[in-house]
Amino acid sequence: MNLSGLSYKQKSEFYEFMCSFVTENRKQRIEEVSKLRTRFLTVVLEDIYQSHNASAVLRTCDCFGIQDVHIIENKNKYNVNPDVALGSSDWLTLHRYNYKDFNTYNCLNNLKKQGYSIIAASPHKNDCSLEELDISRKTAIIFGTEKSGLSESAIELSDGFVKIPMYGFTESFNISVSAAITLYSLTSRLRKSNVLWQLNKEELLDIKIDWVKNTVKSSEMIEKQYFAEASK
Amino acid sequence: MNLSGLSYKQKSEFYEFMCSFVTENRKQRIEEVSKLRTRFLTVVLEDIYQSHNASAVLRTCDCFGIQDVHIIENKNKYNVNPDVALGSSDWLTLHRYNYKDFNTYNCLNNLKKQGYSIIAASPHKNDCSLEELDISRKTAIIFGTEKSGLSESAIELSDGFVKIPMYGFTESFNISVSAAITLYSLTSRLRKSNVLWQLNKEELLDIKIDWVKNTVKSSEMIEKQYFAEASK
Repeated sequence: MNLSGLSYKQKSEFYEFMCSFVTENRKQRIEEVSKLRTRFLTVVLEDIYQSHNASAVLRTCDCFGIQDVHIIENKNKYNVNPDVALGSSDWLTLHRYNYKDFNTYNCLNNLKKQGYSIIAASPHKNDCSLEELDISRKTAIIFGTEKSGLSESAIELSDGFVKIPMYGFTESFNISVSAAITLYSLTSRLRKSNVLWQLNKEELLDIKIDWVKNTVKSSEMIEKQYFAEASK
Repeated sequence: MNLSGLSYKQKSEFYEFMCSFVTENRKQRIEEVSKLRTRFLTVVLEDIYQSHNASAVLRTCDCFGIQDVHIIENKNKYNVNPDVALGSSDWLTLHRYNYKDFNTYNCLNNLKKQGYSIIAASPHKNDCSLEELDISRKTAIIFGTEKSGLSESAIELSDGFVKIPMYGFTESFNISVSAAITLYSLTSRLRKSNVLWQLNKEELLDIKIDWVKNTVKSSEMIEKQYFAEASK
């Protein structure tokens, strides 16, 4: 059901109603975790094809409170391995770009319109080290496919590059490792900063409604009945 | 061939001889990378069974300059996936513990005798957060198996616990992710500190000899000839 026509008050009432179907513990967890969620930093994955990598990145995003993950599927379908993801995708907002053409362009352009600075994670570009990356701007970090890295379009459309310092013979990190280190570093700095990285009031409520619906069995049915009653 | 009976000078001469078979670039790379290697921080993996995880951790160790990896195989054989490891194990010193019994005990006890403080990476123990972990002591970080985590022996023998801060619903990171974040954080702090984390002169030369031998084709044969000549 689409709740976008409802007022904040109506949504709040619906959220409280749904909460009556979950334990107090779960409600508290939803309240706590949602306050730690951010859209200030977001993740874009371009053509990741190994399901253990895809899944590990989702799990990392949930652990670090990143709400939105943008998934570009140009050549490779994005598959989640449930043993690795451990249900983490239930708590994230996944945006998929899997049309015939221009998925990278559509995704990155869309993010730019929303005010995101696009930063490509690339071991071969020397623009900026992870610790120096400016975290005061809304940022989308894009990670490329396992073997060949980011596409030319992604490189062209990026506003900057970020690199994790490396000291060995191997010249790149595994993709799930690279995402983990990057998100750890940036979210740690963000949480200590004065930047307003939290969700706004409306976003917060929408997320909480999604999560309580995820938790309640037969939530679709309960929701329909609730709104049928309300419209009488 | 065992070079341990040789003097430092004899080893140095052998190293220079072997270097005549590699490009100047490669020799420079060996010199640079070896200076960034550390044994002050080491990694223990207990019963990791997914080869992509095992391999990603090796690659991470090489990238962050960790020389020694201790591999405990109680129930699970440690397999490396070459597509993920990308040859990183060629540059590491792997210590394997795969006897019938007491592998965890033998490994950790061995490390304690060498002066290491054993720190268990565990999401459920709240001893110390990653950023607060004391890096002024020689430390071995132990990571447990994918599903059940560390064994009871490992927990008992540990001197402390370290935890990565988490803000989501998922209660743990993937093992390769956990290792990556931990090693990134600790090595970054170590490299900025006054701690003497570098290899000593003897260790440095031994590693360089291993690496140049890894690089040269038919190095075993060349080595035998060299020492046959030398003993004439």
